[in-house]
Amino acid sequence: MKTAIVIGTIVATRKEEGLVGSKLLLTQPVNMSKEPIGEPFIAVDTVGAGIGEFVMYSTGTASRNAANKPKSSIDAAIVGIIDGYDIRTDLFDDKK
Amino acid sequence: MKTAIVIGTIVATRKEEGLVGSKLLLTQPVNMSKEPIGEPFIAVDTVGAGIGEFVMYSTGTASRNAANKPKSSIDAAIVGIIDGYDIRTDLFDDKK
Amino acid sequence: MKTAIVIGTIVATRKEEGLVGSKLLLTQPVNMSKEPIGEPFIAVDTVGAGIGEFVMYSTGTASRNAANKPKSSIDAAIVGIIDGYDIRTDLFDDKK
Amino acid sequence: MKTAIVIGTIVATRKEEGLVGSKLLLTQPVNMSKEPIGEPFIAVDTVGAGIGEFVMYSTGTASRNAANKPKSSIDAAIVGIIDGYDIRTDLFDDKK
Amino acid sequence: MKTAIVIGTIVATRKEEGLVGSKLLLTQPVNMSKEPIGEPFIAVDTVGAGIGEFVMYSTGTASRNAANKPKSSIDAAIVGIIDGYDIRTDLFDDKK
Repeated sequence: MKTAIVIGTIVATRKEEGLVGSKLLLTQPVNMSKEPIGEPFIAVDTVGAGIGEFVMYSTGTASRNAANKPKSSIDAAIVGIIDGYDIRTDLFDDKK
Repeated sequence: MKTAIVIGTIVATRKEEGLVGSKLLLTQPVNMSKEPIGEPFIAVDTVGAGIGEFVMYSTGTASRNAANKPKSSIDAAIVGIIDGYDIRTDLFDDKK
Repeated sequence: MKTAIVIGTIVATRKEEGLVGSKLLLTQPVNMSKEPIGEPFIAVDTVGAGIGEFVMYSTGTASRNAANKPKSSIDAAIVGIIDGYDIRTDLFDDKK
Repeated sequence: MKTAIVIGTIVATRKEEGLVGSKLLLTQPVNMSKEPIGEPFIAVDTVGAGIGEFVMYSTGTASRNAANKPKSSIDAAIVGIIDGYDIRTDLFDDKK
Repeated sequence: MKTAIVIGTIVATRKEEGLVGSKLLLTQPVNMSKEPIGEPFIAVDTVGAGIGEFVMYSTGTASRNAANKPKSSIDAAIVGIIDGYDIRTDLFDDKK
């Protein structure tokens, strides 16, 4: 699973049936310093994530599992809202 | 799911059976400013997308689900036409 | 699906059973100007593609579907020979 | 499977059901010199890995298999703790 | 399928059950000139590949198929030993 911040929403009236009824969130991958890495993509919300929230997302079959829509065209989903984390930042000091 | 713009069509007479009858669209991945990112690829149309339209696409099993051709060699499909979106562009101001 | 040009063949006597009987083509991904992008890889032929032909390929489960070998170790297959295409090259003029 | 070092843990109260009960480890991909390559991601622990340990991880269906949660939204899992390895570093000398 | 050279072995006593009994080979992706491209990874051997051999590998479900362990956490496997190959190197001369 990877980390991201929800940055917006998408409206698409003509869309594959399996996407109907799912909230389409514009999602910006970020690193653990919450800096953007790569381009935004579209994920289905499965945990009630709001704009600006720091989240976990899954891709592929995992995302359809999260949305409980195995036969849909979903290939990315928000699967968790991150409350907190701890990192041992010293682990690579000898490599710097 | 990711964003793209449909830029053309492909003609392939000799092709895998599962592709027969599907419209093969030449698709250019773009970011949210509709700037090209990466190389064009070929996606099956499942929502009646036209040339120049801003679309959502899925890859892998999701794309075969969208085309309703689980046993085909489809690995990318257009699954939505984007009407509009909103983005909170201020979310990363402190990171610039 | 992505575009490539077939550039050669591979001989591998000791190989996974599911690959036996399949033609192993050395395949160079190319863009729509037929310029090489990335490294060559090995794909199973499913449409009678020859050396130098401009083709479409699929990866993952799609490739095993194309070869009709769902239990094999195939993860890339040539699934179409491209006769022609049209591209609206003006779509990004305002972005240049 | 790829190599990584476990660098921390993630806390996410609101998360997809299939993730409940699984330890969420912050995982830094590393090369064989244990130098960071790419961004950290979140993997489910399946072998009792601790912070700082040199591990193997799998992604996609393999990760759900490791966690024995095929219907979950898991898409990455720690699947082994590396005790040791040997590398023939001379194999590419003629290429340098 | 992609090309690589086997460069070593990995020892991991604590590992996912499905990996037990499989030989874990340290595998360096290479191009057709046998130059390293990207980082080494770990693949299960399914064809008796030895250190230094030029091989083909598959990833994802294809790798579990090759190892005949569909429920394991394997996501990469060596699936062929390359005896020889031919390449039409002139195909892109006009592009240089």
